[in-house]
Amino acid sequence: MRELSLSPVERYTRRAQEIESLLCVGLDSALDQLPTRFRTDPHPQFAFNRWIIDQTHAYVSAYKPNMAFYESCGEAGVVDLALTVDYIRTNHPNIFTICDAKRADIGSTNDHYVRAIFDEMDFDAVTLHPYLGREALSPFLNRGERGCIVLCRTSNPGAADVQDLIIDGVPLWLTIAGKVHDEWNTNGNCMLVVGATYPDELRRVRQRVGKMPLLVPGIGAQGGRVEEVIANGLNNQRGGLIINASRSVIFADSPAGAARSLRDEIRRAVSLG
Amino acid sequence: MRELSLSPVERYTRRAQEIESLLCVGLDSALDQLPTRFRTDPHPQFAFNRWIIDQTHAYVSAYKPNMAFYESCGEAGVVDLALTVDYIRTNHPNIFTICDAKRADIGSTNDHYVRAIFDEMDFDAVTLHPYLGREALSPFLNRGERGCIVLCRTSNPGAADVQDLIIDGVPLWLTIAGKVHDEWNTNGNCMLVVGATYPDELRRVRQRVGKMPLLVPGIGAQGGRVEEVIANGLNNQRGGLIINASRSVIFADSPAGAARSLRDEIRRAVSLG
Repeated sequence: MRELSLSPVERYTRRAQEIESLLCVGLDSALDQLPTRFRTDPHPQFAFNRWIIDQTHAYVSAYKPNMAFYESCGEAGVVDLALTVDYIRTNHPNIFTICDAKRADIGSTNDHYVRAIFDEMDFDAVTLHPYLGREALSPFLNRGERGCIVLCRTSNPGAADVQDLIIDGVPLWLTIAGKVHDEWNTNGNCMLVVGATYPDELRRVRQRVGKMPLLVPGIGAQGGRVEEVIANGLNNQRGGLIINASRSVIFADSPAGAARSLRDEIRRAVSLG
Repeated sequence: MRELSLSPVERYTRRAQEIESLLCVGLDSALDQLPTRFRTDPHPQFAFNRWIIDQTHAYVSAYKPNMAFYESCGEAGVVDLALTVDYIRTNHPNIFTICDAKRADIGSTNDHYVRAIFDEMDFDAVTLHPYLGREALSPFLNRGERGCIVLCRTSNPGAADVQDLIIDGVPLWLTIAGKVHDEWNTNGNCMLVVGATYPDELRRVRQRVGKMPLLVPGIGAQGGRVEEVIANGLNNQRGGLIINASRSVIFADSPAGAARSLRDEIRRAVSLG
């Protein structure tokens, strides 16, 4: 059984320390990219995810399915995603689960996303857009036993377009980091997304937010480098990072081998860091 | 048949002119708020929406279901939403359909949201967060026959938290309006969300973006006033507004009466405007 009395930050940290791994695997299981043998299954995305989980769980502190890959399959995708989270929960209750949904609406509407993501699907955490502000996000933030991972510096090449806008000499991404740390984190359940593709920004966010966990996508297919992430992102407890790889693990010839080798690469970098 | 050779802006404008209405009805059909007689239907949200559409279509230029209310019902909600869009498309092909999903991810992931919202569900338009920038949104923006409605000034009371940050003397919400108008709208398919609860901001956005359509939520339950929206938001063609009401129409004793009376109120304000 999962201990919901621990905060989401503690739950992730405990798992990461237990298995000595900061690796998160992104279950971005695009139907048209699945190996042929899964596509004929009545639950193709779930069958694939179960296989990935069976192979990789020993190396993994968190799984992060991105909602888009399930929504594009309609109701079948919604079912397969729910089956996936349930499978993780049942078989590996200590693995942290992140719904990469990048949601945010006005408050009364967010109540419904909270119900879907925290109550129905029972995810440990969700990713959120900051644009509507703290008040709108309060249905998420008030759920102290669940993680709220706010977009700060995203991994995409065009992130600068909006995120590099300067407010009083400080870029928007760093302003958001400061707001989340100083004002939005009253329940101690906030984290931030900072892309591996922006190591300088990662260093400055780490300086700004103390030991707060950072979800770092962009390793592998997007070009981010593990050593740079560790060198710039580790907190003073040699943790505080959720390092995500998706395609480079789940579509590898050997997902188990890819996950183990990435965990080892992260371990080496931490031991040198 | 719907004419996809017309741009989304032209499609909305044509409908609004044909029936002389700028009214959009938000199908925020929260399961636990539906009248009891619908809750026993095998497709409760669809049954309710069909009833609302049958009663209100003559007064309505657009329908805008918000995804959160369907996601919170799991796969059944996804099915009911798809049935709803299909019902509008089949029976009222000239009514503009907006998926209020407030999505935005990195580009390769947005491809999957595009597939779900434009290709599978066949919505005319979607609402989008601006935070990841133009490059990330290009899978949406490149679909010139579909509308991309970017969040600018949202209707919630805490919108100022992030949106009022000042960049070179200009608030973020107005900076986003400028970017969308000057840089993101190369296919002529962009629109903006500006809450009815912020009439001054609405006036300044209108001055900045010419005749670009603005989706204006916040009338009714949230407290926005029709006369202020019309006085501040109308473009120089006496249009350019998609004025949304959700709860105050769909949960009225007579949704038909509420929609007709709101359409009439908007008409009067336009004729005085």
